[in-house]
Amino acid sequence: MRRRHSAEEEADGVLGGEIGAVARAITAIENDLPAGHHVLNRVFPHTGTAHMIGITGPPGAGKSTLVNELIRSYRAGGAKVAVLAIDPSSPLTGGATLGDRIRMLEWHNEPDVFVRSMASRRFGGGLAQHTLTVAHIFDAAGFDPIFIETVGTGQDEVGIASLAHSTVVVQVPGLGDGVQTLKAGALEIGDIIVVSKGDRPDAQALARDLRRLQTLHDREDSPDDRWNPPIVMTSAIEQTGFDKLSAAIRSHKEWLQQSGTWEVRVRTMLATEISSRVQRDLMRRIQSQSVNQDAAINAVLARQMSPLAAADRLLESLSNR
Amino acid sequence: MRRRHSAEEEADGVLGGEIGAVARAITAIENDLPAGHHVLNRVFPHTGTAHMIGITGPPGAGKSTLVNELIRSYRAGGAKVAVLAIDPSSPLTGGATLGDRIRMLEWHNEPDVFVRSMASRRFGGGLAQHTLTVAHIFDAAGFDPIFIETVGTGQDEVGIASLAHSTVVVQVPGLGDGVQTLKAGALEIGDIIVVSKGDRPDAQALARDLRRLQTLHDREDSPDDRWNPPIVMTSAIEQTGFDKLSAAIRSHKEWLQQSGTWEVRVRTMLATEISSRVQRDLMRRIQSQSVNQDAAINAVLARQMSPLAAADRLLESLSNR
Repeated sequence: MRRRHSAEEEADGVLGGEIGAVARAITAIENDLPAGHHVLNRVFPHTGTAHMIGITGPPGAGKSTLVNELIRSYRAGGAKVAVLAIDPSSPLTGGATLGDRIRMLEWHNEPDVFVRSMASRRFGGGLAQHTLTVAHIFDAAGFDPIFIETVGTGQDEVGIASLAHSTVVVQVPGLGDGVQTLKAGALEIGDIIVVSKGDRPDAQALARDLRRLQTLHDREDSPDDRWNPPIVMTSAIEQTGFDKLSAAIRSHKEWLQQSGTWEVRVRTMLATEISSRVQRDLMRRIQSQSVNQDAAINAVLARQMSPLAAADRLLESLSNR
Repeated sequence: MRRRHSAEEEADGVLGGEIGAVARAITAIENDLPAGHHVLNRVFPHTGTAHMIGITGPPGAGKSTLVNELIRSYRAGGAKVAVLAIDPSSPLTGGATLGDRIRMLEWHNEPDVFVRSMASRRFGGGLAQHTLTVAHIFDAAGFDPIFIETVGTGQDEVGIASLAHSTVVVQVPGLGDGVQTLKAGALEIGDIIVVSKGDRPDAQALARDLRRLQTLHDREDSPDDRWNPPIVMTSAIEQTGFDKLSAAIRSHKEWLQQSGTWEVRVRTMLATEISSRVQRDLMRRIQSQSVNQDAAINAVLARQMSPLAAADRLLESLSNR
């Protein structure tokens, strides 16, 4: 009785925007505690309005500086802003990206800005799993927009694109020459492309390359009502481009809503969240059958059975529980 | 009858090192055809000797050049060398990293060098799933070493470390300033650290930083027989460092075998392969129950049910099949 009462109170706290209740709910979700689920189940009907904006790009591209400027811009309009920073560092090197977070410390006395860092490795690669779930809590507490900042290259970017309504891909000049994997990937998933460190001499060339790549894509299929990802150049040193970026993000939200794409994206986001959760739970079940699993691995180690045959055997044992 | 006979022939072809049989087996595995499984099951008892070497690092770090030099070095010693290049590009931008592969074209008339490119996106993030399975085919066909080349930053690196006996992390000068996520991650998973483009003026500073970070790590726990990841500087322009790198990789293999770490790593690799396979098959089962899944997503879209509650319901329906 007492626990249920408490979950109700906590849910009310979240819906009322109480920072303490929000922080406790997030911690409970991160640690997979029943209390977290109870709160989420209660507040979830009140979610669905916040604009979730993914920010991705290579390490050192200036993502945190950019998010900081975006916070400033949205705060000026009176919005409550949340940032979910996905931290690739492990416990061992936990301090490695602390510097990024420190840059956001200027907001720590500001109740309408909530910056939360999450270590991605704890989730065994399941970026989706907790990120969106935590974002629902922010949404329920009235935070809008919610920025999801993550380190990414080619492979990860696909992940973030299914976690956000709008994806901002940050590119930085001077990364490499010749074959430009990143650029191509960026164009594919970025709703908005940022060329950061625009004060550097090679920034213009990067923007030009990106525009050329975009033209190549355009030739294929271009319905009239399609979104053309703008390329925005920013510079923290010269303090330029951030207003333009924030305007581009707002335009993208409008386009999403007018074109009906918003609903399509929400469906993808929720489906990703659900399936990554199901996947994780199934793996846990298998791991809890440790006798079967060890026997299968040992047979494979002894080269008596192929890994595919071992997987089939484990799947069978799971179905026959 | 005919199919079984054919699988036997194909397996014999792989074990005999016939390039055509190897290529067909890999294609069958990539496409998840029963023929691929049959061949793998037959050849798997003859695997377990090849040294699998992961090469990871950011795009533009010069990984392909490095692999090319390593092929040259191992070829000089008479080895049969395979390269599995994990390509983050999608069908849409499939040409983006073609340039990398073209650099390896000089080997295309050489029967003892097999370069195979695989698109990672086809596997929905499951890098492990097919990579090691394909590597077994190379192993059975007598290729040793097998290089697994992949684009990576913080998050991905953990993945590659569980796919290879030895992991080479390539770092490149001039990537970023301040907070150095990559460097820390590299030290954690790299058995050998390469500073590529060693002819650049800032390469020495990067190597120095890496050495300093290494010293910090050392303080924690350092048994005497532990491997100290060497930092090797290479330059494609000056053609330096590649012999040293190839020697470092060979030393690491010796250390793995002498310390008993080889068996530990093999266990991790096979366990990763099995569990990623199990995970994928379970997800397919859920997806095949499309009625349940759609109903669950629709209920979540209508905010009638939280994503966690929907996941629980899907898990229940799976158990009751």
